[in-house]
Amino acid sequence: MIEINFESLKIVVLAGGVGGSKMVNGLAQLVPPENLFIVANTADDFEHLGLCISPDLDTIMYTLAGVNNLKTGWGRADETWQTMEAVQQLNGPTWFNVGDKDLANNLLRTQWRRQSYPLSWITAQLCRRFGVKQTLMPMTDSPVQTILHTDQGKLAFQDYFVRRRCQPVVSKIEYEGVAQAEANREILNAIRLADLIVLAPSNPLLSLDPILALPGLARLIKAAAAPVIGISPLIGGKAVRGPAAKLMWELDMEPSPVGVAQHLWHVLSGFVMDSVDRLHRSRVEALGMRVLCTGVLMTSLEDQARLAAEVVEFGLAR
Amino acid sequence: MIEINFESLKIVVLAGGVGGSKMVNGLAQLVPPENLFIVANTADDFEHLGLCISPDLDTIMYTLAGVNNLKTGWGRADETWQTMEAVQQLNGPTWFNVGDKDLANNLLRTQWRRQSYPLSWITAQLCRRFGVKQTLMPMTDSPVQTILHTDQGKLAFQDYFVRRRCQPVVSKIEYEGVAQAEANREILNAIRLADLIVLAPSNPLLSLDPILALPGLARLIKAAAAPVIGISPLIGGKAVRGPAAKLMWELDMEPSPVGVAQHLWHVLSGFVMDSVDRLHRSRVEALGMRVLCTGVLMTSLEDQARLAAEVVEFGLAR
Repeated sequence: MIEINFESLKIVVLAGGVGGSKMVNGLAQLVPPENLFIVANTADDFEHLGLCISPDLDTIMYTLAGVNNLKTGWGRADETWQTMEAVQQLNGPTWFNVGDKDLANNLLRTQWRRQSYPLSWITAQLCRRFGVKQTLMPMTDSPVQTILHTDQGKLAFQDYFVRRRCQPVVSKIEYEGVAQAEANREILNAIRLADLIVLAPSNPLLSLDPILALPGLARLIKAAAAPVIGISPLIGGKAVRGPAAKLMWELDMEPSPVGVAQHLWHVLSGFVMDSVDRLHRSRVEALGMRVLCTGVLMTSLEDQARLAAEVVEFGLAR
Repeated sequence: MIEINFESLKIVVLAGGVGGSKMVNGLAQLVPPENLFIVANTADDFEHLGLCISPDLDTIMYTLAGVNNLKTGWGRADETWQTMEAVQQLNGPTWFNVGDKDLANNLLRTQWRRQSYPLSWITAQLCRRFGVKQTLMPMTDSPVQTILHTDQGKLAFQDYFVRRRCQPVVSKIEYEGVAQAEANREILNAIRLADLIVLAPSNPLLSLDPILALPGLARLIKAAAAPVIGISPLIGGKAVRGPAAKLMWELDMEPSPVGVAQHLWHVLSGFVMDSVDRLHRSRVEALGMRVLCTGVLMTSLEDQARLAAEVVEFGLAR
């Protein structure tokens, strides 16, 4: 067991929405806020009802602010739905739900976007107003959009994910605009100075890949002095939440922790997977990375803190 | 007393917000919806919190749909304020209030504006969804913006009207963009075919002038076969609501029904003013127009219908 000085530990987390926010929340209980840097996927961002919506940024921000909705996994707690009910009465689009409180945040972001402020500036503003002291960064200020090629045609992410409930069969995923996008400069600095880089248990194809596809970013992470630890979002062949396993299956990947490790192999130095998958430990080790088997399901705040501590200790124990 | 066939009577109304909506509502009780054409001021339209807001269009639409807030004079009845409360908690701008239900309408309009649909198309869509069968038209699809030159500098309309509660002293009013704007084509047709043209008892400087300033529109109205009837928004030197009298005073106009008639003289063939101002009747007649003195205050639905009927009978009795 090594002695870790959590007070001075700098951690960078790459994260998507729900799984990402839980990991981030666990780490936030370990290290001072000024030492936690979160890179959030923005390839799911979209415009709806004229609003600029950033689902992953908001899920993480709401979680860190303690105003997140624990039941739904997205949106705010104690939410009301007056506006969406009125939209419905006007035959407006209701397949994507935005609560009244959630709307306030989206209105502020949209206002600033219309005034041409970059998303990173806006995110910092919103975090400050929500009292979030950690550094939450959109992966880029450039527009990147996940597009899924499916048996029902090319679909934008929210169309696939929310409106069609992940039912179409996917043959290819692309991150439109990513080749022209630039990772935010602050992210590059944070990665260079990090003691530990964590890939949250988010969907590898929909949440982590868009970040890793930013020009130069995967290489920078691989070359960083810090260990890079991934955590399986799959337990025993099933995703805790969302379409990860189904997607991996459709894209000819093994829908298991091993498949996730294989997919993220190019950046990882260590991998954390659930104890129920321990029989496959050697297959992941054969990829050239260290492995920790433990409980990766996070159903409580205690789970989040416990897993975060284990990830940090495992990551630094080399 | 002439015999009027209300069933075939085509009426065009030029209208601003509250006073306009009351006159429109009165006329709507007299003539079939397909024969009532409303030209609404859009020079107060503005962007707020990323939303495209059209105060006068909405006040008239809500009134005709029967969902208007009778107490405030703007917005919707049975309104809630969840989103604005959340905006306030985020230190967002709260000087302009938008209720949750009102937001639904604004979100739909904003979505369509971002998709480049013209405001006239959007207004028709929203009216259809609200069950409004009269033809409500924005005065133009081009951007026109009321700017007030004041002792506190140049102010946009809502800044002057809502944020600063009409307190700055105004030295000049301009309608930015109006020289390049085109009146909607449907308005021109409606004016040509009208049996009666009514200038609602709206603020002449802030609501009627922007419409009349559209290139060619005042001339078309003057040249129309139909009588053109104005109604005083001032009673005994005071505006029923809003800054009309104060503004007229500041701009060296007589703050009275006579001043209103003088100001709109170039298009009017008849003028309706309150009985309390009957002593000034001859001064208005001296401008070359017929005059009706009656009660112009509309505090109830019955007032609206009664005044509307009197205006129509007076207008057609030549």
